Amino acid sequence: MAHHSRLAGFIIDCRTDDLDASANFWSQALGMPETDRYEEGSSVYAELDGSAHGMHIEVQRVSHESRVHLDIETDDIDAEVERLEKLGAKRVAFVKRWWVMEAPSGQRFCVVKMKNPERGPAPTRWD
Amino acid sequence: MAHHSRLAGFIIDCRTDDLDASANFWSQALGMPETDRYEEGSSVYAELDGSAHGMHIEVQRVSHESRVHLDIETDDIDAEVERLEKLGAKRVAFVKRWWVMEAPSGQRFCVVKMKNPERGPAPTRWD
Repeated sequence: MAHHSRLAGFIIDCRTDDLDASANFWSQALGMPETDRYEEGSSVYAELDGSAHGMHIEVQRVSHESRVHLDIETDDIDAEVERLEKLGAKRVAFVKRWWVMEAPSGQRFCVVKMKNPERGPAPTRWD
Repeated sequence: MAHHSRLAGFIIDCRTDDLDASANFWSQALGMPETDRYEEGSSVYAELDGSAHGMHIEVQRVSHESRVHLDIETDDIDAEVERLEKLGAKRVAFVKRWWVMEAPSGQRFCVVKMKNPERGPAPTRWD
């Protein structure tokens, strides 16, 4: 059965005890107001307004090294992870509701459930 | 004098000898066709079609570790670098036509000249 996916956005992972400072820096640097703040387990997220790009952009407090990671969203996580594995990506871990994967070139990225398929750029259909 | 800036896009830096393979992976993973390929000095870039997000998205062959880095574009590089320094970012190196900077949270990013101010999301004006 066909499924769909697209770039959802990116997360700015910051190894910091001071998410306020990191969120403020990136909000100012990118000219994007902070629109939401939420916690989930040990993770804390500051959401920036990426609506002009049709993307979600978040600043996350992490304990691993700081980096930027991409999120791919899909209406079928299992099918999308399998598609990406065939392209050479590897599963790293299933966390809460998403898969962390690693590209052949080494970058980590996440495969998450698509929230608003009707908004933003059209997802790609994979048969 | 006022200047302007905005998120320009992101570059997927790949430590690889095989940019074809990396460009193909990311093109397929994101569902974005490759639209251009160009070399500049020792750098090689594959441009993906990020137009639906109003962003440039490129896969670059690099010799440092693989990562994803953001580009901020501006109509006044000096003024923008100074603005970002006041927010806590540090200058790393001036390369060709752009500044490589480092955020307080450790991520590298680039400040580049704005190419098409009339296209895409409106830049932020900084007085």
